[in-house]
Amino acid sequence: MLKVPEFNPPKRLLMGPGPSDVAPTVLEAMSRPLIGHLDPEFVRMMDEIKVMLREIMQTRNEMTFPVSGTGSAGMEFCLVNLIEPGDEIIIGVNGVFGTRMCDVAERCGAKVTRVESTWGTIISPEQIAAALKTCRPKIVAVVHAETSTGALTPVEEISRLAHEAGALFLLDTVTSLAGCPVLIDEWKVDAVYSGTQKCLSCPPGLSPVSLSPAAMKVATNRKKKVQSWYLDVNLLSSYWGQERVYHHTAPITMNYGLHEGLRLVLNEGLEARWKRHEENHLALKKGLAEMDLQIVSQAGHQLWQLNAVGVPEGVDEAGIRKKLLMDYNIEIGAGLGPLKGKIWRIGLMGATSTTQNVETVLKALKQLLGR
Amino acid sequence: MLKVPEFNPPKRLLMGPGPSDVAPTVLEAMSRPLIGHLDPEFVRMMDEIKVMLREIMQTRNEMTFPVSGTGSAGMEFCLVNLIEPGDEIIIGVNGVFGTRMCDVAERCGAKVTRVESTWGTIISPEQIAAALKTCRPKIVAVVHAETSTGALTPVEEISRLAHEAGALFLLDTVTSLAGCPVLIDEWKVDAVYSGTQKCLSCPPGLSPVSLSPAAMKVATNRKKKVQSWYLDVNLLSSYWGQERVYHHTAPITMNYGLHEGLRLVLNEGLEARWKRHEENHLALKKGLAEMDLQIVSQAGHQLWQLNAVGVPEGVDEAGIRKKLLMDYNIEIGAGLGPLKGKIWRIGLMGATSTTQNVETVLKALKQLLGR
Repeated sequence: MLKVPEFNPPKRLLMGPGPSDVAPTVLEAMSRPLIGHLDPEFVRMMDEIKVMLREIMQTRNEMTFPVSGTGSAGMEFCLVNLIEPGDEIIIGVNGVFGTRMCDVAERCGAKVTRVESTWGTIISPEQIAAALKTCRPKIVAVVHAETSTGALTPVEEISRLAHEAGALFLLDTVTSLAGCPVLIDEWKVDAVYSGTQKCLSCPPGLSPVSLSPAAMKVATNRKKKVQSWYLDVNLLSSYWGQERVYHHTAPITMNYGLHEGLRLVLNEGLEARWKRHEENHLALKKGLAEMDLQIVSQAGHQLWQLNAVGVPEGVDEAGIRKKLLMDYNIEIGAGLGPLKGKIWRIGLMGATSTTQNVETVLKALKQLLGR
Repeated sequence: MLKVPEFNPPKRLLMGPGPSDVAPTVLEAMSRPLIGHLDPEFVRMMDEIKVMLREIMQTRNEMTFPVSGTGSAGMEFCLVNLIEPGDEIIIGVNGVFGTRMCDVAERCGAKVTRVESTWGTIISPEQIAAALKTCRPKIVAVVHAETSTGALTPVEEISRLAHEAGALFLLDTVTSLAGCPVLIDEWKVDAVYSGTQKCLSCPPGLSPVSLSPAAMKVATNRKKKVQSWYLDVNLLSSYWGQERVYHHTAPITMNYGLHEGLRLVLNEGLEARWKRHEENHLALKKGLAEMDLQIVSQAGHQLWQLNAVGVPEGVDEAGIRKKLLMDYNIEIGAGLGPLKGKIWRIGLMGATSTTQNVETVLKALKQLLGR
């Protein structure tokens, strides 16, 4: 029989676009023995996860829980439940994840109107207002924090425009949640998904989602069944709701980890956590500037948790990244799409966002770039 | 801010329909620090997972990897990739999971022909042969080990009939894989999915799948895009294949656990593992008979890893189960659908399948039933 040795991962500092470093108590929680997914103790823990998620998302939405898949499954969850074939949707596209939303929505049979901005810039309310003159969408969707470009789109005004036009407002908060203000109820967001491996600092594998009562009404009054059984909120609501009707088997251990991760967020306090992310971003930016390196996403809209750093002329982008990983055990990310080869993406998310890590990556870059 | 205490799960013996007890080294593997999902070391580990899965599934299929969701996501993966609207499919229905397959297939737009057997009995080749006279299916699908009833359907002859009719053969091995013989290539299975939380004894959260070259041809030559972006094998094959094109972020920690779980299977040896499952099933059956309790699924086709025990007349099914959990910390499962209240489901899967556990559950039942 085949013999494969044990896998012992090297110790990396995760400063890419995610996963971020996981807090030791989260890993500890995940090493605890399993209980059944219908065990009363697990059910109680599911309830605590829902309560904590609502607090962190700043929402009172009953339907707030983690989908048993990664952030992309959360994106698909929102779209498959709300879209029926022929529905119109406006999607802001200023990076990988807006592009992905269009693909997913089209697979649901939606007629997609793309509102495009240059990668690295935001989607403006004016663009959305203009698009709303050309169609009557059921949903307006944007990405809050574009992980692929480092731009943070302000969404309150976009949400207002969407509702004025009678549409639901859908928001991707994969990278923003718990790293900067995300105010689901105040901003009147109807459908939101996030990921565990960014500012929540858990391993990837779950996608916290929340649907407003208005979104739930759309999902429960569909003419056609949701095309995904696995992601059908009509089935999931009975599993995560009071009835506890068996649907799928929840990823027990991932939920242990998420429970602990959410606890850490609340123990720190949301505002303190946002402030920590802001301060470390500013420190990184200052240090980069001293080396004559710039954050290239739109000024005034730069993410605290993901920094898109312009690669200087003549520097081997991939070579530096590889050396950081191999010689310094620091992972940073590459640019994607039109930004490939042009930026490095330095993540300061969750447990990774510390003064010490900022100093560590600055020092390593200084050595490698000779600046 | 909300304060929630740490979650410390009680220590249960997991003898239900899954999850089963997880081996300590799997939990240990999952407590290791994260690395990035595109880290060369993670990529190397992904390759090892694929190689080990092929060995355990007894297949040479290149497209063999874990889907980033639970077993039900694996079911949906197989169906969404192979079905286009209007396609015909024959599905064997003798429990919850055959029923679920019909629901998923219909959501893909399939015309489903159900071949039904009483819950607890198998699907026979004669039934499939009869159904094949009424339609021209693209796929014939059955559940190998019906977790809801404890019946094991022999599939070689069904596979032969399917291929003779020009159809692909699809098999659910969620509960069978690594607990009894599962010979994907020898049985000419074209599409197969499993789960990690049964006889592989890992936490739930991943679904090992495999597609034959014939199934891959169907999936890659579709007229219409796969309706699920998250589960589209055309995208996943570039992520899990040689190119490593970013798709979603793989659940790193779950894959650490699976890697270790697969290692344990291969270290024990497939045949030794099957034999262990058989022996512990027989020991349980003998002990149950001594208490005048019977396994009620079809004689000659009873699963080794999941035992459907008839609840004696006048006994409070749910009460006994609750006492086992609360007073003995032993989890067993309830009956579902037509078997609700009529059976207990005692799992002997993976790490749970030991002589000691058989004795423990027999002793507890003896005390509770006064037999």
